Amino acid sequence: MRQIDFGELTQNSAGRRVPTRVNGVPSRPFSGVGAPAPEGSHHGPPIRSCSDYPADGDKRVASLREALERCGLEDGMTVSTHHHFRDGDRVAVPLFDAIAEMGLKDIRWFPSASFPCHEPIVKHLESGVVHHIEGSMNGALGDYCSSGRMRGLGVLRSHGGRFQSVQDGEVHIDVAVLAAPTADAFGNANGLTGPAAFGQMGFALADSLWADRVVVVTDNLVPFPCVPWQIQGNHVDFVVEMDCIGDPERIVSGTTQITRSPDRLLIAELTARFIRDAGILKDGFSFQAGAGGTALAFAVYLKGMMQAAGVKARFIRGGSTKYLVEMLEEGLTDYILDGQTFDMAGVRSMRENANHVPTSPLTSYNFHGKGNFASMIDAVVLGATEVDVEFNGNVVSHSDGRVLHGIGGWQNCLAAKCTILAVPSFRDRIPVIRDRVTTLVGPGELIDVIVTERAIAINPRRPDLLDAVKGSDLPIKPIEDLQAEVEAICGGKPTEPELSDDPVAVVKWVDGTILDTAWRV
Amino acid sequence: MRQIDFGELTQNSAGRRVPTRVNGVPSRPFSGVGAPAPEGSHHGPPIRSCSDYPADGDKRVASLREALERCGLEDGMTVSTHHHFRDGDRVAVPLFDAIAEMGLKDIRWFPSASFPCHEPIVKHLESGVVHHIEGSMNGALGDYCSSGRMRGLGVLRSHGGRFQSVQDGEVHIDVAVLAAPTADAFGNANGLTGPAAFGQMGFALADSLWADRVVVVTDNLVPFPCVPWQIQGNHVDFVVEMDCIGDPERIVSGTTQITRSPDRLLIAELTARFIRDAGILKDGFSFQAGAGGTALAFAVYLKGMMQAAGVKARFIRGGSTKYLVEMLEEGLTDYILDGQTFDMAGVRSMRENANHVPTSPLTSYNFHGKGNFASMIDAVVLGATEVDVEFNGNVVSHSDGRVLHGIGGWQNCLAAKCTILAVPSFRDRIPVIRDRVTTLVGPGELIDVIVTERAIAINPRRPDLLDAVKGSDLPIKPIEDLQAEVEAICGGKPTEPELSDDPVAVVKWVDGTILDTAWRV
Repeated sequence: MRQIDFGELTQNSAGRRVPTRVNGVPSRPFSGVGAPAPEGSHHGPPIRSCSDYPADGDKRVASLREALERCGLEDGMTVSTHHHFRDGDRVAVPLFDAIAEMGLKDIRWFPSASFPCHEPIVKHLESGVVHHIEGSMNGALGDYCSSGRMRGLGVLRSHGGRFQSVQDGEVHIDVAVLAAPTADAFGNANGLTGPAAFGQMGFALADSLWADRVVVVTDNLVPFPCVPWQIQGNHVDFVVEMDCIGDPERIVSGTTQITRSPDRLLIAELTARFIRDAGILKDGFSFQAGAGGTALAFAVYLKGMMQAAGVKARFIRGGSTKYLVEMLEEGLTDYILDGQTFDMAGVRSMRENANHVPTSPLTSYNFHGKGNFASMIDAVVLGATEVDVEFNGNVVSHSDGRVLHGIGGWQNCLAAKCTILAVPSFRDRIPVIRDRVTTLVGPGELIDVIVTERAIAINPRRPDLLDAVKGSDLPIKPIEDLQAEVEAICGGKPTEPELSDDPVAVVKWVDGTILDTAWRV
Repeated sequence: MRQIDFGELTQNSAGRRVPTRVNGVPSRPFSGVGAPAPEGSHHGPPIRSCSDYPADGDKRVASLREALERCGLEDGMTVSTHHHFRDGDRVAVPLFDAIAEMGLKDIRWFPSASFPCHEPIVKHLESGVVHHIEGSMNGALGDYCSSGRMRGLGVLRSHGGRFQSVQDGEVHIDVAVLAAPTADAFGNANGLTGPAAFGQMGFALADSLWADRVVVVTDNLVPFPCVPWQIQGNHVDFVVEMDCIGDPERIVSGTTQITRSPDRLLIAELTARFIRDAGILKDGFSFQAGAGGTALAFAVYLKGMMQAAGVKARFIRGGSTKYLVEMLEEGLTDYILDGQTFDMAGVRSMRENANHVPTSPLTSYNFHGKGNFASMIDAVVLGATEVDVEFNGNVVSHSDGRVLHGIGGWQNCLAAKCTILAVPSFRDRIPVIRDRVTTLVGPGELIDVIVTERAIAINPRRPDLLDAVKGSDLPIKPIEDLQAEVEAICGGKPTEPELSDDPVAVVKWVDGTILDTAWRV
């Protein structure tokens, strides 16, 4: 067993046991939604000088390894990457291979997310090249963390929380390695064109602004200027050309298909009807939905209702897909404010349509900013792995306690005016509605509505919503009744997972405090 | 006489006497072009929290005064403004009237530039509301400073130097007041539309990023989202609506007319011919020219030569005018990289054409960045009030020593691969070519060519350029010969101005060091 320094365990204001230290740094336990800002200032990166950069703007070096060497990468430093390629990334694996070749140890990997394609990095965790991962872990790396083999605590942050942690200096990035579908030799970069185009680079923004050193890696070098410069070359130290930085077939999420499950379609339809019948659907309104099968179906139902009512949205927040793009192109919304593109229709639209606007964790999600877009949205529709009768939500762990998913923008989106979790009432005969979520990721006071295929439960903290749908034919019922009904079908309450007392990861709240702990399984 | 604390006078590496203290802060004397970066880090503004901002994103307050009060403005603080309205600004005067009404004293005004329209602020300098101005002073305020009546030293910075000073924490802005032709209630803002549209807001970027508090003032409020957000609402504390923030008739510079002077036309033509005959004009090249009458004529001559040679530029840097816009629209350049729009054709083009790209002092001019665009430009054509036989240039003072102009991007542009000063050989029978410039603003080692109506002088430090035009029919001659010729016409050398030993302002170099001093006249 690895030894992890986590200080002691203390109980936070949500009643969850959390470590007092995370990877050598004292941590603050969660103290409530909307707690005041910490003291202190944004991180200030070192002052650079044009004297130290080529006057002709050509920052190319021959290889990733040369770039890392010239960045002064050393044992124990932090290397960051972004996840816009999702499971099609072809940069992180050669990156850590190069770091291993350099003979370095104990690197902290700070990805915005990791995916099954990153499984080869497990060997670098085993050999000591990588000390631990701080970032969403999907698939094998999540399993590795859950099994207690990682030498440090995993740290799960929302998109906004990751931005906040870098901005506030909680995480100091020594070297950011930013894969860019198009770039010039100065380091200006975007994700709109090139063989590995994925849309936009918002998840790399914080890294580019605050890392000590920034390396842009591209397989599509264009003459200066690369326009638009989603990443500004003025923040970039070196540019590396590679043959292939991403697999276009796997960049697009496999989930951007509308569900065919009758139950999921019903959930989607009920969600859309709720938004309509609660009076949220009206001219100038806004909504956000993800790219899962249920969310896509929801968007299609809502579109029909908008058309029937003659209603136009002011903006839609995506994860964009062809379904949202159609709504933009058909005049059903003025804008798409897009955090990431999930299919090639989204990429094309962002490239061609000035009203399909790239956003970033700064604009949309950073809780330590002067407001953000998330709280201005009329309705957001999200998924969850579990919910509980206090309306708490879990999105990172399965009911067996294994951490297999990242938080993404989920926590940040809870700030919307109406937050809806659209979930099946059970999965594999295990009820999704529990007495207490295995891992607390979203405090119940921020979750307003739970829509399942059997009924809709409205948080009693929202009497306004209860009033709004009074008299509608929606199947509204108290969450306790819904829970009882599901338990009757599934043969009782779900079994509690057998969790150890060994922390393997922490879940941060949007303000950097520790909301909950994931335990070795 | 006012007492100014300027420490002592010391001689810098350019041989100029400069103060050791500027407005209470120790200053670094200029130590050479391309001196190493200072130690230290970027300024980090205070960490904020969404808890302290309205969840619905509506940051409007009733008046400028209320905004200033809620910003906590106090005696001695620093208030910044931008100058995109140029002489049509209608915000700074009511701003300082409001500050005066609040009974505040000793405010440091940190505009990116001030104009004749700001003359009413002289009374606030006299009464003690404003302590001094740090920023370009055009017209009456420059005269006020030169006459020694200001209580602090004027500090003249280039556009890039101003960005650098804020980024590096040399200038701490307490409250930035940013006039925006279009904005939403969250503070997203742009200059593209609205009755006072001026194009883009790049000069306000540093203020928005690093000021403690940011107020957006607009006369054209639109529903969220204001797209594009040249200024991001995530950096904005308060939004104020006013009836009129700028006078469109006076926003556009009065100088955007092609010169009709035969001498100036000749200068323009010789400049274009030099660029052609030196081999700089070729496919994929780049150039920058300003919006003065000679520079505009130069652009028109160059355009003809490009057409004749079948050459297309990769990019043109502006100050954009209809002449550059025509080149973009006629396919003579791939891009305009635009620092500020000088006429309505520029505003329209930037609004409509994705290849007319707004730039900022960060992208183009900041010397304390990881490179910038200025050094990548093949040829830049600039003006000057004086030059000397060492190729030093002056752009801020007249030959009588009065400081009447700002530096603008002039110093930053000297980094280009070929820097050309296009100047008349004399003005009002006073030779422009002197033994020594009255105020040193641009070190001669960065100035490659001086083009006058009588001859072209090439800096002996650039034998490559001398070689390149060997055999051409251009009137090339040593600068000493040119000087002698002009002195013969004007009846001798210009009289030396009668300057006191009292500093009234300093000229900063692009790295924040003190290059020269302006003296009380």
